[in-house]
Amino acid sequence: MLDRGLVLMSDTRTNSGVDNISVFRKMYHWNVPGDRMIAVMTAGNLATTQAVVSQLEERTKAPDERDNSLLKAPTMFQVATEIGKLLRTTIEGRQSANGEKGKGRFTASMIVAGQIAGMEPRLFMVYPEGNFIEASWDTPFFQIGETKYGRPIILRGYDRDMSFEDAVKLLMVSFDSTLKANLSVGLPLDVMVIERDGFAPKHEHRVSLDDPYFNAISSSWGDALKNAFHSLPDYSFYSE
Amino acid sequence: MLDRGLVLMSDTRTNSGVDNISVFRKMYHWNVPGDRMIAVMTAGNLATTQAVVSQLEERTKAPDERDNSLLKAPTMFQVATEIGKLLRTTIEGRQSANGEKGKGRFTASMIVAGQIAGMEPRLFMVYPEGNFIEASWDTPFFQIGETKYGRPIILRGYDRDMSFEDAVKLLMVSFDSTLKANLSVGLPLDVMVIERDGFAPKHEHRVSLDDPYFNAISSSWGDALKNAFHSLPDYSFYSE
Repeated sequence: MLDRGLVLMSDTRTNSGVDNISVFRKMYHWNVPGDRMIAVMTAGNLATTQAVVSQLEERTKAPDERDNSLLKAPTMFQVATEIGKLLRTTIEGRQSANGEKGKGRFTASMIVAGQIAGMEPRLFMVYPEGNFIEASWDTPFFQIGETKYGRPIILRGYDRDMSFEDAVKLLMVSFDSTLKANLSVGLPLDVMVIERDGFAPKHEHRVSLDDPYFNAISSSWGDALKNAFHSLPDYSFYSE
Repeated sequence: MLDRGLVLMSDTRTNSGVDNISVFRKMYHWNVPGDRMIAVMTAGNLATTQAVVSQLEERTKAPDERDNSLLKAPTMFQVATEIGKLLRTTIEGRQSANGEKGKGRFTASMIVAGQIAGMEPRLFMVYPEGNFIEASWDTPFFQIGETKYGRPIILRGYDRDMSFEDAVKLLMVSFDSTLKANLSVGLPLDVMVIERDGFAPKHEHRVSLDDPYFNAISSSWGDALKNAFHSLPDYSFYSE
């Protein structure tokens, strides 16, 4: 979450074990020009997240159900509430259908980002239980899925007034660390920039395996980190 | 693991919930000048790791049991085997004493590092099951406990021929990222350097809350990272 809007990035790898990996989009959006822009990113059980997104899609298409729809919700808070309810009931449905062996499976979480005209851009993290928290300037970013490897650089590099381009670069560096450490995260990556009061994606990009910019970042970040490391004061055994 | 020896670092925080944190050493060593140097670092259930270390300590003290002892083991492989057996039986003992509710509790893992005269320095990671893996130049470092936040910088900054001082600096940067992200990891830190064929700690240091060097690293690493980040090529919306 930046002063000028919202920047999202997701990978596309899903797996049922390391010998069964696939590419599925984990970023979705719906918008009404001039009125609202709503984006969702997903992590966790793919069948669960696809079921939730399909239900959201259907609601946006069936006019007679539009009283439930993201496109009619009066606030982003209502949007997050609606998505949380759908996520919780989807997970509960699968778990109860599978009895004892369904326990703790089918879980998923989501990030909901967007803006409705006349209000601020907002960013939420929705838990499997259907409840959610909202980003603030004290905690201005959320991660779901494999969050740890990529977190330190975001903590250090983030500034609320950074440009969209710098934010995309920061997220690419963060994802690069995660990609290098965890096989369950993989290219391609999806990038989306939502400008304040834009109500449509300002920028969308899929970072594929042969993306020249991402590859340049990935290869030069190692050297840049080494230079940063060597710029720090040296340790001495005798200075204590 | 470096060409010139072994470098170890551990934190000292243990917790039973965020409202019950304590300081306990997680790094131990035993050495016989000219003959052997054996160090152990622990992660996981504190009662388990203390029980294992106490048994190791007692064995080094009771001459009539020395056929089991770390100080008599002919190789580091035997040392790791011995520690693995002790770890596994300690965990199993606690679990079976607690029946169903003991399942999956009391678990712990260890890093074993050291050298016995006439052989190479060696580094092992011992699992709760008692089995273990050994570091090689393909995988020259191990982490236990909260491993993820601090891993990317080690992956990028490590060189097998780096100086001991640079390796300590690298581990401090790595721990700094972890300390900033996870409350269950905390100062002070323990540092130990084991030089090849030294058979005694070459350097020991406890990094306390007011350690001037660590504080300098911690505060300048943020700036160094930002500079590294800005040295990377800029992203553009229009270059695709």
